[in-house]
Amino acid sequence: MKKVCFVGACGHSGSAMAPIANHPELFSVPAVSPGAPGVVLTGLVKRLSDKGLPSPKVYDDYREMLDKEQPDILVVDAYFCDHAEMSIEGLKRGIHVYCEKPAATTLEDLDRLEAVYQEAKEKGVHFAYMLTTRYDPWFYTAYQAVQQGAIGEIRMLNGQKSYKAGKRGPLFHKRETYGGTIPWVGIHALDWVLWFSGKRVKTVSAVQSSMANNHNGTMEATAICLFQLEDEVVAHINIDYLRPQTAETHGDDRIRIAGTKGVIEVRGGKVYLINGEAEGQRELPLLQPPQIFEDFAASLEGKPSLITAEQSLYFTRVCLTAQKAADTGEIIRMD
Amino acid sequence: MKKVCFVGACGHSGSAMAPIANHPELFSVPAVSPGAPGVVLTGLVKRLSDKGLPSPKVYDDYREMLDKEQPDILVVDAYFCDHAEMSIEGLKRGIHVYCEKPAATTLEDLDRLEAVYQEAKEKGVHFAYMLTTRYDPWFYTAYQAVQQGAIGEIRMLNGQKSYKAGKRGPLFHKRETYGGTIPWVGIHALDWVLWFSGKRVKTVSAVQSSMANNHNGTMEATAICLFQLEDEVVAHINIDYLRPQTAETHGDDRIRIAGTKGVIEVRGGKVYLINGEAEGQRELPLLQPPQIFEDFAASLEGKPSLITAEQSLYFTRVCLTAQKAADTGEIIRMD
Repeated sequence: MKKVCFVGACGHSGSAMAPIANHPELFSVPAVSPGAPGVVLTGLVKRLSDKGLPSPKVYDDYREMLDKEQPDILVVDAYFCDHAEMSIEGLKRGIHVYCEKPAATTLEDLDRLEAVYQEAKEKGVHFAYMLTTRYDPWFYTAYQAVQQGAIGEIRMLNGQKSYKAGKRGPLFHKRETYGGTIPWVGIHALDWVLWFSGKRVKTVSAVQSSMANNHNGTMEATAICLFQLEDEVVAHINIDYLRPQTAETHGDDRIRIAGTKGVIEVRGGKVYLINGEAEGQRELPLLQPPQIFEDFAASLEGKPSLITAEQSLYFTRVCLTAQKAADTGEIIRMD
Repeated sequence: MKKVCFVGACGHSGSAMAPIANHPELFSVPAVSPGAPGVVLTGLVKRLSDKGLPSPKVYDDYREMLDKEQPDILVVDAYFCDHAEMSIEGLKRGIHVYCEKPAATTLEDLDRLEAVYQEAKEKGVHFAYMLTTRYDPWFYTAYQAVQQGAIGEIRMLNGQKSYKAGKRGPLFHKRETYGGTIPWVGIHALDWVLWFSGKRVKTVSAVQSSMANNHNGTMEATAICLFQLEDEVVAHINIDYLRPQTAETHGDDRIRIAGTKGVIEVRGGKVYLINGEAEGQRELPLLQPPQIFEDFAASLEGKPSLITAEQSLYFTRVCLTAQKAADTGEIIRMD
């Protein structure tokens, strides 16, 4: 039985709470904490009461919660600017951390988190963040196909995240709390680029704009990042909050990967492949991926997980560096 | 009756010859010239003989052809490195030039061509190049929809050109003759970006690689260009020669444009629109565009044409600058 505490409910902590509520024989939730003024935990806690499970204690101060409850796992999902500090507080106490992305919103915070993680790692403490889209059947299926050689060696990757903007809370209105659209939204598309290719970034340039952001403060509504990866592999991601309210889904996630033997594409929740094995474009049947939090929990028992701490930290670094490139209008070397 | 001479048949001169062969009452072809050793004119000339029209005289030296035949129009379609020089020779003689893209393969040649064009323009001499895809029904339809406000103000553009590589002739194997993949292939995608948006480029960065080019010399197989346009509009184009031989079509041309009121997309020869006027994504019925060479010929009579000389020259400049950005690894300002 693992004790899991939650701080905040601003992002995808439901990806942890759903399997927890379904498996009271494996997990318990002794306590939660809002993590910032105004963060509402009702929806998160309701998942427990819906299953007839006891309501967790609520702490105003998450540090006090950690000290008193001594959980096995801390789920970090507060204001994005606080992810790093809260993760550090958990890791320092020897608590495994399952963190909303990005792991940090400034390079300074990321440096601190990395240093603390390196120490915690020596003691067997785990850290991973919520790259939830890896566990979408379409991305998972495409990844497995690429791993099996469906498109040969990867030469180019083109990723897309497109969201409906809507009217967002104050968290999103300022860089100080939000962190920026490249790290918040773009990180998924960057994840596909680096996860599929297995390459590291050599240079990055980027552009972005806060115009046409539906009155959401300084939140960037558009951004494009351009990457030179190792071995002359090239990649880009384009990100926007311009998806119309009338669109069928909230997001329009895409990755297109061109290799030496074919092209694979994820679009509209489907996977399309063209290679030498058949004439024309084929749609691949979707595989069933593991559930992200269950995958994380299994990794605590020594099983391999789709997401590693090193990826979580490095991909955050790439996003923050891409944002710096956009802020400064410079190309930044990362090798 | 307009006299049209051709130099070379390396690219899309068929876009001129087809309507000429269909309209012997409007055009005649007194002569052609290969423009470079080894350029075969058979296919081009066959379009005339297929219609029972007289075979044109063949000149080894295209300059001699221009002096002796004094055509109204010169179609330039030789080695890409010679487009600028041949256009200059035509314009200097007061001959309208319909030129394969790109208009030049070096910035120095482009400077010379621009200077000569400015003089020729004063005398009413026309220049335009073969941005053939503007006359594809899908791009034409999307352009008209955007002009009519279907997506509001444009905020981001994402363009794609993907081709089958095949085994290409020696023209393609060296930068000196080929000019590069960004100006040769990418120029169409850049055209959509700048034509649809009506914006000029402020900065450009780019990456490219000749790896995995199917043994075609130094021809770049992949490239991505990132643009900051006026008014904080952002854009990118991705270009590759990695389309598998088993794909249904030679090319996979795409543009996706996100605006303040919707998103429009050209993909697979179709046009998709999402905006506030209807729920979900709609496919637009295709409009019938004019024919590119007929449009050019009409412009000689003072009618407005889809393509202007200024666009032809400026878009070439942007492509060559993008290629320079990829060659040097620098961001280049263009404003």
